[in-house]
Amino acid sequence: MKAFDIQPVCRDMEADIQQKIDNLNKPKGSLGRLEELAMQVCLVQQTLSPSVAHPCHLLLGGDHGIEREGVSISPREVTWQQMINFTRGGGGVNMFCRQHGFKLRIVDVGVDYDLTAVPGIIDRKIARGTRNFLFEPAMSEEEFDRAIGVGCELVDACLAEGCHVLSIGEMGIANTSPSSIWMSLFGGIPLEECIGAGAGLAAEGIRHKQDVLSRAVARFAEVYGKGCDDGAHGVDGQAHTVTTIRYFGGFEMVAAIGAMLRAAERHLLTLVDGFIMTACAIAAIRLYPAAQDYMLFAHQGDESGHKRMLDIVGAKPLLHLGLRLGEGTGALCAFPLVDSAVRMVNEMNNFQSAKITKYF
Amino acid sequence: MKAFDIQPVCRDMEADIQQKIDNLNKPKGSLGRLEELAMQVCLVQQTLSPSVAHPCHLLLGGDHGIEREGVSISPREVTWQQMINFTRGGGGVNMFCRQHGFKLRIVDVGVDYDLTAVPGIIDRKIARGTRNFLFEPAMSEEEFDRAIGVGCELVDACLAEGCHVLSIGEMGIANTSPSSIWMSLFGGIPLEECIGAGAGLAAEGIRHKQDVLSRAVARFAEVYGKGCDDGAHGVDGQAHTVTTIRYFGGFEMVAAIGAMLRAAERHLLTLVDGFIMTACAIAAIRLYPAAQDYMLFAHQGDESGHKRMLDIVGAKPLLHLGLRLGEGTGALCAFPLVDSAVRMVNEMNNFQSAKITKYF
Repeated sequence: MKAFDIQPVCRDMEADIQQKIDNLNKPKGSLGRLEELAMQVCLVQQTLSPSVAHPCHLLLGGDHGIEREGVSISPREVTWQQMINFTRGGGGVNMFCRQHGFKLRIVDVGVDYDLTAVPGIIDRKIARGTRNFLFEPAMSEEEFDRAIGVGCELVDACLAEGCHVLSIGEMGIANTSPSSIWMSLFGGIPLEECIGAGAGLAAEGIRHKQDVLSRAVARFAEVYGKGCDDGAHGVDGQAHTVTTIRYFGGFEMVAAIGAMLRAAERHLLTLVDGFIMTACAIAAIRLYPAAQDYMLFAHQGDESGHKRMLDIVGAKPLLHLGLRLGEGTGALCAFPLVDSAVRMVNEMNNFQSAKITKYF
Repeated sequence: MKAFDIQPVCRDMEADIQQKIDNLNKPKGSLGRLEELAMQVCLVQQTLSPSVAHPCHLLLGGDHGIEREGVSISPREVTWQQMINFTRGGGGVNMFCRQHGFKLRIVDVGVDYDLTAVPGIIDRKIARGTRNFLFEPAMSEEEFDRAIGVGCELVDACLAEGCHVLSIGEMGIANTSPSSIWMSLFGGIPLEECIGAGAGLAAEGIRHKQDVLSRAVARFAEVYGKGCDDGAHGVDGQAHTVTTIRYFGGFEMVAAIGAMLRAAERHLLTLVDGFIMTACAIAAIRLYPAAQDYMLFAHQGDESGHKRMLDIVGAKPLLHLGLRLGEGTGALCAFPLVDSAVRMVNEMNNFQSAKITKYF
């Protein structure tokens, strides 16, 4: 895997930013979470005049070998059907991108269907779906590196267009399965507590999913051992983390990890939402802890699985809307709050210019 | 007080609305709170094609006699200074109105300053502040009726311009005091548990505020008795509720109640936020329980006072951002989610048109 140069955000400006926020025309702290958000955006962008200009949304699609085991309520064909639907503007992600002015990039990283003739889909297909991780690694080392590279390339393209906020979503039937496994292995949480209904499995389906994933994890542990997933991030730990990602991940998920790491390297704020994207964020943070400084956890979908996953990295999400559609919809819904925070810093008068008696 | 004709929303369309939402191109229920929100907007507007066109924000200003008792950290002059600042676009409310396309109406309902020469302020001044409710009713019956009428007139003006969503904010130094008293009297909560720091009082200031407000409430009870505030809403109960509102309320608060009731009467969705606006909403609901159907509780400011106040009417707010600026900023911040919910109903493909294998 390529090395990233990811530094924690520089905090030298912190006092100046806080002073600017505190002197705005409002009681100190009275804009609550928006003030914390403003601080993060200013630190990420290293400025007193932050921007959310040219926001971009990456919609990454891929299929999963594990889908063959019947772990999802939806059939594999829904992945490609939805990818085409997104190009026509009729998905959840489309609505919210239109609403908030995001440029949407729909990218085939590994969909099991020939989409090359479909206008509006960027072809970065690595293979027609991953292999079935019940029996073998989902992808080779070379495929993993290529997927990471796809994420990097997409972020660079966004930045070249002046993008100041990135969000990422996914489309990939069965991708809650690798997410649950990463949550378990990276969070030290028993696997059965990491497996939920996905897009709507009933109790019998959940039991089957637990059985399949338990067998897969047991086999992985036999071959690769438990590694150094103990919170230390030395070279050995990183190597095992990479193996864990590669063994279970989807192409769209690894591309998302690459995008998150590249965004952190280039000081671009990334909005993270959803069970699958949070799993990718945790994997990225496992590889490079400083990457978390550049991530904004936008949405918590439920009180059980997703909340526990967010707790692994101590994330306090902005929204609690119970969304579980994926596609990055929760991240997009949080964007207006980021915009509000930035407007506060840039547009709100301070006490002097407003000629207001300063309260305290 | 004038009578309003406020009916609960008609639920005859509920099944049709639910069917439309369930057949959109997404797993059932997967847009969580947005789906509940969509249902409410459709019911309020009695349509399968809801709209958030021409949103309006009322910013109602007034001063309070009780301010003379030193219950607020900010001096009275901040009310008029901020009203002028709002006309110049430099307040929190201005930013968020610009961001979300709200038409802002800045209305002087009772500010203690001559604002007639200030362009951009609508003059509906009833008096230069209320009287001090430590010694006498804040306003007369005639003033109360006029303030209710101001709220009605403003809503009618918004509707005449095609307004589909209303939000209301306030500017009035010391108006957390009547809010705390209403919370106590309408919610049956001991007064000391209803009094907080307002815009930033320290412990000594809070003790003083508790002392002043306790004496005011004791005096009120001596003169008017405890009334029928027992949850029954008969004619006697309503009369006592009106007296409670009139005795403690600010002109801007009574105008807000009038606006909420008129909006409910005319089937206009109202976004409610903040400690003061929630107190007004509870007063309005006390008068006309069915008015709650037309209200959307947009934001919860804190876990203590405001949460308990919202619990009085069983409200589940959309956002939890810790805002305590007032001006209706929390309501405005929630608007994009209402817009998202409406776009979902209007713009998202259904399974048939998207040619997606229906998941279940």
